[in-house]
Amino acid sequence: MTMHELFTVLAPADALARLVDGCSPIPRTETVALEAGLGWVAAVDIPAAETLPAFARATMDGYAVRSADTHGASEQSPAYLRLTGDIPTGVVPNVRVGEREAVRIHTGSMLPHGADAVVMVEDTNLHGHDVELLAAAAPGENVLTVGEDIREGAVAVPAGRRLRAADLGGMAALGITSFTAVARPRIAILSTGDEVVPVHATPGPAQVRDVNASTIAATVERAGGIPVRRGIAPDRHDELLLEARGGLAVADALVLSAGSSVSVRDLTAEIVESLGAPGILAHGIAIKPGKPTVLALCAGKPVIGLPGNPASALVVAWRIVRPLVRLLGGEALADDTLGDESFGATLDLPVPSRPGREDYVPCTLARDAAGELHATPIFGASNLIFTLVRSDALIAVPLDRSGLGAGERVTVIVP
Amino acid sequence: MTMHELFTVLAPADALARLVDGCSPIPRTETVALEAGLGWVAAVDIPAAETLPAFARATMDGYAVRSADTHGASEQSPAYLRLTGDIPTGVVPNVRVGEREAVRIHTGSMLPHGADAVVMVEDTNLHGHDVELLAAAAPGENVLTVGEDIREGAVAVPAGRRLRAADLGGMAALGITSFTAVARPRIAILSTGDEVVPVHATPGPAQVRDVNASTIAATVERAGGIPVRRGIAPDRHDELLLEARGGLAVADALVLSAGSSVSVRDLTAEIVESLGAPGILAHGIAIKPGKPTVLALCAGKPVIGLPGNPASALVVAWRIVRPLVRLLGGEALADDTLGDESFGATLDLPVPSRPGREDYVPCTLARDAAGELHATPIFGASNLIFTLVRSDALIAVPLDRSGLGAGERVTVIVP
Repeated sequence: MTMHELFTVLAPADALARLVDGCSPIPRTETVALEAGLGWVAAVDIPAAETLPAFARATMDGYAVRSADTHGASEQSPAYLRLTGDIPTGVVPNVRVGEREAVRIHTGSMLPHGADAVVMVEDTNLHGHDVELLAAAAPGENVLTVGEDIREGAVAVPAGRRLRAADLGGMAALGITSFTAVARPRIAILSTGDEVVPVHATPGPAQVRDVNASTIAATVERAGGIPVRRGIAPDRHDELLLEARGGLAVADALVLSAGSSVSVRDLTAEIVESLGAPGILAHGIAIKPGKPTVLALCAGKPVIGLPGNPASALVVAWRIVRPLVRLLGGEALADDTLGDESFGATLDLPVPSRPGREDYVPCTLARDAAGELHATPIFGASNLIFTLVRSDALIAVPLDRSGLGAGERVTVIVP
Repeated sequence: MTMHELFTVLAPADALARLVDGCSPIPRTETVALEAGLGWVAAVDIPAAETLPAFARATMDGYAVRSADTHGASEQSPAYLRLTGDIPTGVVPNVRVGEREAVRIHTGSMLPHGADAVVMVEDTNLHGHDVELLAAAAPGENVLTVGEDIREGAVAVPAGRRLRAADLGGMAALGITSFTAVARPRIAILSTGDEVVPVHATPGPAQVRDVNASTIAATVERAGGIPVRRGIAPDRHDELLLEARGGLAVADALVLSAGSSVSVRDLTAEIVESLGAPGILAHGIAIKPGKPTVLALCAGKPVIGLPGNPASALVVAWRIVRPLVRLLGGEALADDTLGDESFGATLDLPVPSRPGREDYVPCTLARDAAGELHATPIFGASNLIFTLVRSDALIAVPLDRSGLGAGERVTVIVP
């Protein structure tokens, strides 16, 4: 047993919480155009400079009326009003609705003075210039009043929101053509391992290509970060330390994909401790695959040492690196959860596990005739990259469970 | 009732199926670098040109042995082997494991000749050059054999797969540095409405800014398409037809955001019928909000006329345009479903609905102490864009339900 293995192994959620407690969203911002805004995070509250709608509008095709004139109208006892005009959309009405008068109006048209309701066309008959009303209208019926959507000075989009289609639509309604976004966090990715060669190289005997740089970069990108690829460092103290320092210097966080052997893991932990205070927060997390993970804070920047095994590295990247990148990117995340990218399925076969450990088990997904999603675990060889390629998702076995039963409702993730 | 309202209103899934039946993934492809591959769709099966692993490797730190020499070993009755060497990772072993010999090996190291198993270091004690084994090893134990991950000639990543982190990792393992992807489909977006002005303009009295171009573009982008913004066309037959033709000519599909009034909807339907055969497939879909939707195929290209109301347009864009763009983009989608972007929550309040119609009801989401996600519907003003901005998600009420009960498990989406 080495020095570092004396550290307590933490639950993934606790390990992440320790890391998050010690770091802050990056302070850099960018001005982003509305058209390019999807997926950027608002750096500050975006206020409404206008009240919307700015004018009372019809929400139906029909007739603008004084509601009092429709009182008691029904199919049995229609009310009759005189048609005095027509208001196209986009123009200011040149008519005023007087007593016992009706003006033809279209969805989106400005409500004319005098009117306080719209009777929808389906509840009317037109006889020449006489409008027959088969239903009464309450004041405000089928009318959108000024400020019902948003009021000047209100927060249109809150700081920390990762912008969705609706948010961009709201900004468009207000004429907001650009906004201040949190810059995308830069995440340095450094692979280690004397047996590891770059993807474009032909491995010699006993060598393998670098898988983890690609999967970690994709995870960072999906979480809104910018992967900064720093290549492969050898498993030697001085060179690895130099490369790790260099990576951390040009980025907001460093993700090391460490070798898998115990000696290399110890080397990684030593290097991480040398990068700055307070150093290692968690040495080992209660997750399978992925236990030999090192989490650290070095001079204010997160440093994560992932296991060298590709499946382990990808699972921990999803579980730890992804939410970290989102938080560094200014996103206001709810309390630790598997997040908004998990979904539910019904488990078809039992999955064994061990309490005190989160398990991620590859599975295939299929829908039954009723549209219900079913997850079938893929057992064996779960630490191979192509097992993950062949799987549709991973079943998340919660920390406190000693396995999941067939027929149970489970959470699945796509790392 | 106008001519077009005589058409049958279709269920959203049926309407989408009719549209999908009549169109194909776009034939254009692009060569994409591995580093940029996230989210692109493989145009053809990507084959493995190598067998992985290419050599038998240790999956644990420990000792490479002949399994026969470990037979019966246990804590009570250890076996003793002679240590004859050490195999670092990345190098070809210069030793051979003979009878009653053991060689130190590290995770990822090449298995030496003679050995057929690895005893993990935790099950051993080292006394000078004598290795004490406290456990037996079966043949192949803690060894990854040649081809266990993937075999030369197998499909590494299938055509139609939208590439995830794991897929990129698999390609990296094989040294695949670029691949053929389906080009991103180009979707023309044309807004209509005499009352609609561009986002950068100051609306006159009775005018509003174009909200739908932004929300539709974001939906297209999220589905992997390229939004081609074609601006705002007036509600006049000849000009609108010209603009619609122009949009369709430069794109793989056309999405019109039609005016909301009946006369403008009829105009849109007329225009769509003029764009090419077979023309309109569905005039109206059983969805709320969003019923006044027109789906058409015009000379092989999909044309979708969305309602003018921003909330309706966004819901139908999510329900219909999003899967269409994914299919045009070559993605092999399962049968029609709400898709892999929906998730589950527990409903906190009953939601009324009407059988025969899919309802999408804005809601907030919160987790309880147990981590369970709860959806609370937001009632009233559901057709306003800022109601969607203020909501976390939409509750999907299935077609056949007459409402959902409190405590029920429901599906929610984020459009």
